Amino acid sequence: MINKVLLLVCDGLGDRPIPQLGNRTPLEAAATPNLDALATQAQCGMMCALGRGVRPGSDVSHLAIMGYDPAKEYPGRGPIEVAGLGIALEEGDIALRGNFGNVDEAGICRDRHCRHISDFRAYAAAVDGLEIDGVKFIVKPGTAHRAGVVLRGPGLSDAITDADPHKENEHLHEVRPTDNSPEARRTADVLRKFFVKAAEILRNHPQNIELQKAGKTPANFVLVRGAGRYRRLQPFQQRWGLSAACVAGGGLYKGIGALLGMKVIDVPGATGKLDTDLDAKVRAALDALASHDFVFLHFKAADTQGEDGKWAEKKAFIERIDRALAPILSLPASTLFIATADHSTPCILKAHSADPVPIIFRGESVRVDGVKSYGERACASGDLGLMTGLDVMAHVMNLMGRSPLVGA
Amino acid sequence: MINKVLLLVCDGLGDRPIPQLGNRTPLEAAATPNLDALATQAQCGMMCALGRGVRPGSDVSHLAIMGYDPAKEYPGRGPIEVAGLGIALEEGDIALRGNFGNVDEAGICRDRHCRHISDFRAYAAAVDGLEIDGVKFIVKPGTAHRAGVVLRGPGLSDAITDADPHKENEHLHEVRPTDNSPEARRTADVLRKFFVKAAEILRNHPQNIELQKAGKTPANFVLVRGAGRYRRLQPFQQRWGLSAACVAGGGLYKGIGALLGMKVIDVPGATGKLDTDLDAKVRAALDALASHDFVFLHFKAADTQGEDGKWAEKKAFIERIDRALAPILSLPASTLFIATADHSTPCILKAHSADPVPIIFRGESVRVDGVKSYGERACASGDLGLMTGLDVMAHVMNLMGRSPLVGA
Repeated sequence: MINKVLLLVCDGLGDRPIPQLGNRTPLEAAATPNLDALATQAQCGMMCALGRGVRPGSDVSHLAIMGYDPAKEYPGRGPIEVAGLGIALEEGDIALRGNFGNVDEAGICRDRHCRHISDFRAYAAAVDGLEIDGVKFIVKPGTAHRAGVVLRGPGLSDAITDADPHKENEHLHEVRPTDNSPEARRTADVLRKFFVKAAEILRNHPQNIELQKAGKTPANFVLVRGAGRYRRLQPFQQRWGLSAACVAGGGLYKGIGALLGMKVIDVPGATGKLDTDLDAKVRAALDALASHDFVFLHFKAADTQGEDGKWAEKKAFIERIDRALAPILSLPASTLFIATADHSTPCILKAHSADPVPIIFRGESVRVDGVKSYGERACASGDLGLMTGLDVMAHVMNLMGRSPLVGA
Repeated sequence: MINKVLLLVCDGLGDRPIPQLGNRTPLEAAATPNLDALATQAQCGMMCALGRGVRPGSDVSHLAIMGYDPAKEYPGRGPIEVAGLGIALEEGDIALRGNFGNVDEAGICRDRHCRHISDFRAYAAAVDGLEIDGVKFIVKPGTAHRAGVVLRGPGLSDAITDADPHKENEHLHEVRPTDNSPEARRTADVLRKFFVKAAEILRNHPQNIELQKAGKTPANFVLVRGAGRYRRLQPFQQRWGLSAACVAGGGLYKGIGALLGMKVIDVPGATGKLDTDLDAKVRAALDALASHDFVFLHFKAADTQGEDGKWAEKKAFIERIDRALAPILSLPASTLFIATADHSTPCILKAHSADPVPIIFRGESVRVDGVKSYGERACASGDLGLMTGLDVMAHVMNLMGRSPLVGA
């Protein structure tokens, strides 16, 4: 009987046929002997995390795959990213993600990433803990230029717009309430006051003074976006009866793990980027299986390559994933291995799409079908047909013999 | 990237195996080299417009395929047919479709079509514009014996039964309210008064006096059915961001186009019947693609042959469709071509059924599958599986890279 689960999510893995690849997708064109062997031993199908025709963000897609209905339980992107930075959120906190960037005296955003700066920790520390009108601001650095900002205090709302203009050389957006509640007005107001105060602190920050002396752009602004009100989600272990661990490089995915109460395992070399150490992540995931019932393993960079339209690089990264998965073939049958993606990121679109992604279930007593290859069109002929994200944990519970009985 | 869409709907195309065709359906038995070539280049599947097991009318099926949920947006058959006659409907109008027929002095319907009469325009003009109890009656002729009747005025309802007995040699049905509202009672009442007045006018109409002299049955009654209360639907262009045109012969299908704000193109020779000029319609559709983003092309007669149980004629008409589609093979990849049906009309039933119909999507970057033939059972093994009507425009938006993102 299956008693452990390893869920691999390859972000943005699905794609569309690419003429230069002989009208194959990057996944179909990639040499993936290990994934093909796993598919051959598996029950296969396709998945649209939020249902057919719906184009999902990574956050809602992962929630659905973990068995949390985004229509009812989505807390917004901010709280998920911020949870991934290790900030312990409290009920009612308003969380935003953001970048350290540069805004000039006219209010124009000149640099959204300040890539010439390698360490933003001192900036975060300089503005962390500010209190304005009874609201405490918690600011923590993320990977590279990223940061999480939390507003903690009474009478706050997430019904506010982004400050981040999402483009360079555009005017900073004014944070406005999106409804007529006094809470939204207060939140927008206190956030504007925070910007003034934080800008003043950052303007005079020694690290920025050094940069300016060197003729470089200082990081003087926290460009926030994606406000969400934190609400506690039922922990994964409570919902599914499985102790769980998360092995991921990207902040969002660590945040999903943290939000669901999984043990988030920091793996040296796991960057969530092309330079990530896939072997180390697979090792960490296999190690985590020794002490946890369920391990969520996330690989990011296929999505990033899709977003950049780099089909050759996407294919090459998929081949690296495949090589890293060699140890999976030695997993005992009592460990259910699932390989899927959160959504497609077709190179032709350079964006997420609603195209379904392959999903395979390999483990003891699954109804292995005739699919011999891990690819979009190979798995489309698998026995599972088209699943939704919420179907995944239902299928896992069923395979584990843990589904509740309906009726008698 | 796909930037144009041609949607072909072959009414009632689907069928069931017919022993005389070697247990093939008319579509499977027909020689369709062009549709087969298109299917070979396409992503294929099956569709039940309203979902599995639901037997749809043509009106609701088309609405679903266009992305309008019939459960929420169906205005009734009357308003759709009437819109197809070119009557500009106003919010709150009660619209009915009807036939000019004959009812004898005992109230028995003796002729539902008066096929011996070739022109009903004078009859319509004679009763058009009548006013009864503050309700204006608008009567316009349709194709052959058909007519549209609109009641315009305050306090009306579509909660009324049909006058048309739907069979000859049966008593005319009394129009009754189907709920207890004063509006429904008033509408039934005013419609009965209209019948008396219209019958009096038609009895004395010179064209009828001529017919009676010649020993022929006069057309003395408007047999109405399908009352619906008009409500404005969101225009197709507003909903999907695509300028749209409609090429159809049948009134209902022109009505769908008109109701959704499409440019309804009148094609000489497009009759909606067996004698229709399919080549002219295909030419008109291809011409319309030059100036519109989306073209809806409708062929009717396969449905009519199914309703009559004429499997050989249905097969022959499908072969005519296939020949007319030869120019489609030259469409650029940037034009998405979709070929489907609104429902099946199995010859054995002589009626609509819930059996799914084939659907194919051919255009740039679709995930072409292994289906090599356009038929019910060939497309059932396609990668799309079983779609609903509402899935169609969602899939179109996805392929065009225009789907809204859910989550972040």
